[in-house]
Amino acid sequence: MKPSIPKGTRDFSPAEMLRRNYLFGIIRTAFARFGYLPLETPSMEQLSTLMGKYGEEGDKLIFKVLDSGEFLDHADRDALAKNDSRKFAVSVAEKALRYDLTVPFARYVVMHQHEIVFPFRRYQIQPVWRADRPQKGRYREFYQCDADVIGSNSLVCESELIQLLEFVFSAIGLKVVVQLNNRKLLAGLAEVMGVPDHLTDITVAMDKLEKVGLDKVREELTAKGISAQAMTILEPVLLFKGVTNDKLAMLDSVLATSETGRKGIEEIRALFSMLSNFSFTHLSCELDLSLARGLNYYTGAIIEVKAADERTSFSSSICGGGRYDDLTGIFGLSGMSGVGISFGADRICDVMEEIGLFPESHTSAATVMAVNFDGDPDGSVAALLHRLRMAGVNAEAYPDPVKLKKQFAFADAKGIRYVIVRGDEERNSGMFNLKNLADGTQHTYTAEELIGVLVQKD
Amino acid sequence: MKPSIPKGTRDFSPAEMLRRNYLFGIIRTAFARFGYLPLETPSMEQLSTLMGKYGEEGDKLIFKVLDSGEFLDHADRDALAKNDSRKFAVSVAEKALRYDLTVPFARYVVMHQHEIVFPFRRYQIQPVWRADRPQKGRYREFYQCDADVIGSNSLVCESELIQLLEFVFSAIGLKVVVQLNNRKLLAGLAEVMGVPDHLTDITVAMDKLEKVGLDKVREELTAKGISAQAMTILEPVLLFKGVTNDKLAMLDSVLATSETGRKGIEEIRALFSMLSNFSFTHLSCELDLSLARGLNYYTGAIIEVKAADERTSFSSSICGGGRYDDLTGIFGLSGMSGVGISFGADRICDVMEEIGLFPESHTSAATVMAVNFDGDPDGSVAALLHRLRMAGVNAEAYPDPVKLKKQFAFADAKGIRYVIVRGDEERNSGMFNLKNLADGTQHTYTAEELIGVLVQKD
Repeated sequence: MKPSIPKGTRDFSPAEMLRRNYLFGIIRTAFARFGYLPLETPSMEQLSTLMGKYGEEGDKLIFKVLDSGEFLDHADRDALAKNDSRKFAVSVAEKALRYDLTVPFARYVVMHQHEIVFPFRRYQIQPVWRADRPQKGRYREFYQCDADVIGSNSLVCESELIQLLEFVFSAIGLKVVVQLNNRKLLAGLAEVMGVPDHLTDITVAMDKLEKVGLDKVREELTAKGISAQAMTILEPVLLFKGVTNDKLAMLDSVLATSETGRKGIEEIRALFSMLSNFSFTHLSCELDLSLARGLNYYTGAIIEVKAADERTSFSSSICGGGRYDDLTGIFGLSGMSGVGISFGADRICDVMEEIGLFPESHTSAATVMAVNFDGDPDGSVAALLHRLRMAGVNAEAYPDPVKLKKQFAFADAKGIRYVIVRGDEERNSGMFNLKNLADGTQHTYTAEELIGVLVQKD
Repeated sequence: MKPSIPKGTRDFSPAEMLRRNYLFGIIRTAFARFGYLPLETPSMEQLSTLMGKYGEEGDKLIFKVLDSGEFLDHADRDALAKNDSRKFAVSVAEKALRYDLTVPFARYVVMHQHEIVFPFRRYQIQPVWRADRPQKGRYREFYQCDADVIGSNSLVCESELIQLLEFVFSAIGLKVVVQLNNRKLLAGLAEVMGVPDHLTDITVAMDKLEKVGLDKVREELTAKGISAQAMTILEPVLLFKGVTNDKLAMLDSVLATSETGRKGIEEIRALFSMLSNFSFTHLSCELDLSLARGLNYYTGAIIEVKAADERTSFSSSICGGGRYDDLTGIFGLSGMSGVGISFGADRICDVMEEIGLFPESHTSAATVMAVNFDGDPDGSVAALLHRLRMAGVNAEAYPDPVKLKKQFAFADAKGIRYVIVRGDEERNSGMFNLKNLADGTQHTYTAEELIGVLVQKD
């Protein structure tokens, strides 16, 4: 009987909505400021659109939507007999909830390739769903805020995305570190290690370096068949300490024989050179050679952002992205290079909450409330509220003629700043009393005057 | 291989998003103007929260989300043997997509009753999902925009919701008819017909009057066991023509013996009297005694809005709502009366599209685009764009140094108004060329001047 909500999901109260809208507003403004256009895709995609795009682990975490009607008529009885839930699921669930915004974006681009003017910059702010085990900072329904540009190879795109990060994080007042790497460096490394086919194994293992340590990474790669000799090339690169120029110089030598690797170095140099023209206040960029990112589709720059504020206990990444040369290839449109960034809005909210970055003065409450003195017999209070609203003032009526004390307590609890009272005295004189709840002052005004006062305060 | 999206769902391109955001913005502003606070609930609810709340038909239309993992372990094998898809579904789907915003709101109020200050005005703008057969104006994923106030019996709430309708429809420029009725009138009618227990049957049948005609309604009610004599009381009421006062006078006599009926008349009179204080420009209210609305939980005023513009072919309702005295009772909190209204944003968009109510000048494109002349070797164009963005101007960079003609065509296609060119000549003189694509004029400016010009135009 007692109602509840599914684990890993959340209700957002008005106070929480206010904070979230504050952050979303900043991100949306930043996207528009850089020329990205809004796009929305359906919450449900064909299951076949999503399956196989996020690796084996990802497939398991996709929420599948049961077919309507007599779905047992087309259920896979064989899978049922074998108690194979995954195989059975595919036979009774044609649709699924989107898992990220990137695959639906690729699907959209392919379906609308003839209407789109490329390079296409789009942003998308929508929830995604993952059947992950819920824990701190990890939800089963959460918002992603993505900006991608597709149809251009230019590093200007990467540079602008990083400027966009500065735009957002300086607006919210959070210092961050932007970790950069390039998949071409990693591919070059796999080449010079003599295991070009193991690039995915290497990136998957490297992605865990920070969490599990070098020994575990070595163990995992050995299990994947990478020789101890090959590891002697990889390890010094992963562990190398030094400034960006030292790292690049080291790579010049390690990757000298790999064309892909040299191209990666060149891209990184060019990007850092473009970024050197800007003086960022809230963002520092570093070349992190151990950065790999889990997703397979990246082919160039990869980006990860972490909070760099000593007041936060949050160490996981709050933004991520990178360049993909063939994301739309999975849907039959090849040769479309793109690059994008995704803000993890829920995690950013958690960090902002933790260190107090939301403006305190912020309120979504109406500016003024009209007390219900005696049911407003002549309709004059309702008429005043109407005029206030037409003048752009958020104004609410207390609906019931209960004790004034209760009505004032209500206005206080909601954070309403002004209260209008029209008692017998005011009605006789054709006036309205306006009380400022913050400082307790009050004045009597005509309707005209009162509107003037509140329009200014709003 | 060719990708598609589930039937009844839609992608919203940037141009469509712009129009939808325009409408949502107006509705959101109206909600805030009347003191409603934002709330969001999860897309997924426990299936048990939703089942049984929307009638038998509704239960079938709820999208169920398949449990993750080895769900066959707890599948209902008995239902399977009997090929009972509905019973089987409940055993493998603990969660479901929300079907409307009202039941999740009631669930929220019950779960948070100790933190909420009543009367609680909340608005909620979120998608809902229904496994309905898709057709014109009916989608499987669509947005509802709801405003409800809970914890007050006052008719001020009803009056303000209707003022809110005027606020929205005058802002978008659409004339509408607001049909009003009161469930207490209908309950009184069932009483005087001698069939008080058949109120639901009567409202369900009446709700179809417009669609199927009087004969079918009579047939349906006869089948439900309502006598021909009882029908002689109902029919004249349904068919009565006249202005509101005539209708109320007729009801005074028909419902004289029913206390509930008399209360309904009193509420309608009071509401019309309150509304008579306002001169609405886009909205006319009429008492429609055949209005019943399908949902069972209404107990007082019921409201339905239809477009009243001869240019639209759209006849179905675009907004609906009403008062419910015990919605939270289903979750264990009784005695909470509320009233709300729901805007069918997708249908309103369809109507606005049909008769051209979206402002044409509207664009979400950036104000200015910088041409990529030769890769911006000194970074001066990137620096200018940075300053423009900091000054609040939406500005984008064309990323690739392709032919100027192609870049100008791109700006044109996107609806960008200004283009910045910095060729050799401009670079030598330290200037920037700004071209107005609308009228073809161009001027050469310093960076400072150019920023000044564009800040003004934005």
